Amino acid sequence: MKKNSMEVLSTITAIKKALEKQKSLGRSVGFVPTMGYLHEGHLSLVKGSLRQTDCTVVSIFVNPAQFGPKEDLQEYPRDRERDLALLRELGADLVFIPENREMYPEGFKTYVEVTDLQDRFEGMSRPGHFRGVCTVVMKLFEIITPEIAYFGQKDAQQAVILKKMVRDLNLDVKIQVLPTVREKDGLALSSRNVYLSKDQRRAALCLVKSLKVADRLIQAGEKDSLIIKKEMKKLIDVESLARLDYIEIVDLDNLVPMDKIKGTALILIAVYFGKVRLIDNMVVKKRSESS
Amino acid sequence: MKKNSMEVLSTITAIKKALEKQKSLGRSVGFVPTMGYLHEGHLSLVKGSLRQTDCTVVSIFVNPAQFGPKEDLQEYPRDRERDLALLRELGADLVFIPENREMYPEGFKTYVEVTDLQDRFEGMSRPGHFRGVCTVVMKLFEIITPEIAYFGQKDAQQAVILKKMVRDLNLDVKIQVLPTVREKDGLALSSRNVYLSKDQRRAALCLVKSLKVADRLIQAGEKDSLIIKKEMKKLIDVESLARLDYIEIVDLDNLVPMDKIKGTALILIAVYFGKVRLIDNMVVKKRSESS
Repeated sequence: MKKNSMEVLSTITAIKKALEKQKSLGRSVGFVPTMGYLHEGHLSLVKGSLRQTDCTVVSIFVNPAQFGPKEDLQEYPRDRERDLALLRELGADLVFIPENREMYPEGFKTYVEVTDLQDRFEGMSRPGHFRGVCTVVMKLFEIITPEIAYFGQKDAQQAVILKKMVRDLNLDVKIQVLPTVREKDGLALSSRNVYLSKDQRRAALCLVKSLKVADRLIQAGEKDSLIIKKEMKKLIDVESLARLDYIEIVDLDNLVPMDKIKGTALILIAVYFGKVRLIDNMVVKKRSESS
Repeated sequence: MKKNSMEVLSTITAIKKALEKQKSLGRSVGFVPTMGYLHEGHLSLVKGSLRQTDCTVVSIFVNPAQFGPKEDLQEYPRDRERDLALLRELGADLVFIPENREMYPEGFKTYVEVTDLQDRFEGMSRPGHFRGVCTVVMKLFEIITPEIAYFGQKDAQQAVILKKMVRDLNLDVKIQVLPTVREKDGLALSSRNVYLSKDQRRAALCLVKSLKVADRLIQAGEKDSLIIKKEMKKLIDVESLARLDYIEIVDLDNLVPMDKIKGTALILIAVYFGKVRLIDNMVVKKRSESS
């Protein structure tokens, strides 16, 4: 434990003042935006920031703008005490926990959107989701002005969209994407995993299994996306508790679907278990180009 | 003339580098975004920045994103040589003149919008206009990171929208709005005035005349917006070359129409002369509350 003076702040004025002090001391700032209910995935981002920057800021804000009217905003799991204990233990410097009214005061009207990319895949299932994500991340970047911001590969489309936003709007921040953290059996960590029943939890392994099948097929020389997606789908269909939302194989940079695999592909999958919707993905590149 | 070393830069990298130098010297930065073809209105903003900040940056960029497909993007008047001579004479420090491709590289997809406010009045006549304005101003703010940015009251709705954008997205810049500059006879300066024929130029005085009538009525105690708008409209209707687009009396902060005048009102007017569309406005407050 290198520090024991983690500050927890809830107003924009207070966090800006604390950051001004850090910057006046010449410290570089790393930022990990979260919705709380932290798991090892989030903590790996915090550790990344602690390694690479002088001052690590974590925000905890369940952003209403990225939830649809029928989504789980109210039920989204929260545990502030535990979150703060975990962050204190790791040695985070500043934690920003604003109320909704601090981030979205009455009469709020301004939104940032990455057209096209925001409408694909997750955006199709969750209209307005990425507009909400871009808007809150933009606001947090302006408030915190970090050198580096950390996001998980788990939310692959989000990472692609935020990188695009940063490039298009000339934002002076580096987006660092760190690998998906998984349970021992392969399930990608997600705050929503707590919603799963025991049987659903077991069935949920079909996501990572189908991604591994896709990887094996590609390594074996399969180039036809349709064939790969069919093989993936079989592994979802055998799970009676699983209902496929989508499987897509896309270009890593612009999310355009690939009919034929070439170069590096991003394979995306989303599956429902009852009302719980889980996503996972894998970046796949054929290791040998001989076959 | 306090300086003779105005720098003209066309790439984002170059302007950022020049600004880094200014900031390392502890200089405050003022910014005047323009579309060029400078008139005394623009120059009053430049003078404002020269008075209030250490380093004045002017951008000249005819922003395609704020023109509709049927608007005058191609014909928008340009005169770079004259613009630069005027800015050099005033003593501007940095001029940023990017090409379209520098601001909107291929595959550009990100937009900033102020919902609701962007759809009223000018936005009704020019769909997408304010989204284009907000997006380019956001980009320019990120590139130039000024302490103060200067805009003219002439574009009243634009000023209200940009202030809202800055507040909503927590941007660290002050928006300073300076008064409309007018010809001796009262016509508000606009780069589009050059399009007017001699007869249209004379007829165009109906905008400022109608605003003055509104002011007189309000000072005389008239509180009914409908009556005021009717009197204003009469002055447009008598000009055979003029075709009214809209007259609105709105709240200065949120652009909500006022049925009854109270406090400070913003009176907006837009009139066509052939294909040329002119706008003007007046901020009116009853000077004595006795009547």
